[in-house]
Amino acid sequence: MSDVTVLERLLVTIAERRTADPDGSYTAKLLSGGVPKIAQKVGEEAVETVIEALRGDRESLAAESADLLYHLLVLWTASGLEPTEVWDKLAEREGTSGLAEKAARQD
Amino acid sequence: MSDVTVLERLLVTIAERRTADPDGSYTAKLLSGGVPKIAQKVGEEAVETVIEALRGDRESLAAESADLLYHLLVLWTASGLEPTEVWDKLAEREGTSGLAEKAARQD
Amino acid sequence: MSDVTVLERLLVTIAERRTADPDGSYTAKLLSGGVPKIAQKVGEEAVETVIEALRGDRESLAAESADLLYHLLVLWTASGLEPTEVWDKLAEREGTSGLAEKAARQD
Amino acid sequence: MSDVTVLERLLVTIAERRTADPDGSYTAKLLSGGVPKIAQKVGEEAVETVIEALRGDRESLAAESADLLYHLLVLWTASGLEPTEVWDKLAEREGTSGLAEKAARQD
Repeated sequence: MSDVTVLERLLVTIAERRTADPDGSYTAKLLSGGVPKIAQKVGEEAVETVIEALRGDRESLAAESADLLYHLLVLWTASGLEPTEVWDKLAEREGTSGLAEKAARQD
Repeated sequence: MSDVTVLERLLVTIAERRTADPDGSYTAKLLSGGVPKIAQKVGEEAVETVIEALRGDRESLAAESADLLYHLLVLWTASGLEPTEVWDKLAEREGTSGLAEKAARQD
Repeated sequence: MSDVTVLERLLVTIAERRTADPDGSYTAKLLSGGVPKIAQKVGEEAVETVIEALRGDRESLAAESADLLYHLLVLWTASGLEPTEVWDKLAEREGTSGLAEKAARQD
Repeated sequence: MSDVTVLERLLVTIAERRTADPDGSYTAKLLSGGVPKIAQKVGEEAVETVIEALRGDRESLAAESADLLYHLLVLWTASGLEPTEVWDKLAEREGTSGLAEKAARQD
């Protein structure tokens, strides 16, 4: 059984693929396509995740969520974003609760 | 500095909010709104993530990515999806590489 | 040069394709796939429209907007939605203006 | 009962709002926010359209489709895109059919 640290390992793998042959690796091909193409994939996988959630198909929701996460990690890599910047944002939210949490959010 | 395990802690917090007062917690309010409303937020945050990636604003990309991840975790909770089901899917991908990786993907 | 009535003619063509062979027509194939698949295409084309708008590529924005509109018309057909229901909603908005317009909108 | 020409009239109204007071008109406020903000609204309305289609709520699908179309027209205006560029793209598609249609499409 896997745990959340698989995301960290995937990030390492994705970073390594930056110099790989685009013909031999899906990740390398994605990275060579640039940010707009990768962002498009993130958007498409999000749409599929939304649809599977609405359909109530849990197995497909897991698969599409994994696809969404994977492409999001590739987008961070292509954008030069350090994952810790995201974890820090989430940790800020973790600390807040109740109405404080609500007030801290802009939406 | 935070690491990826913040996602696991957030999942625990979100699960606890299932029985909290919707008036006092943003998460409880989201959960009480049901899957379609939460899925809509996931879709909206994905659109914002795509836009910040295109604009090249790394700080905003980190913030929107965090919002997207948070709402995705809430969607899993509302859908009764165990996170390990997603980590397992990602671990399958972790093992593959090169052309094998490409062949394993349907897109 | 075309005008907006091309949308009405497309709607007629799409309706005719409901009984066509899915192997011989992209529209017939879409319709046979059902609402979730068509809705997914609408979401994907919207993401591409957003991206081309951000990139400032007017030619591509026109092409993606056309793709979005086409798939939206197919979604209406698959959902049994009469186009006049949409035109009526837009006509309501047309009549409002200024602050009245703002007040009439929920967002 | 309205027809598709409501879109042409809305386009005229939107163009007029370019010089209106953002405090007094939702359209003027949108236009003053710039392309990324308007594109974000297009993406969000598309997500809502997808969700209502999945839920099978025809009345809401009509309302969200109208919202999507309206924001798309605002996006064209903000991007300096002439609507005829989109109608022309759709007319090209109108002429194709069957396998020719399929071959003409890139997706």
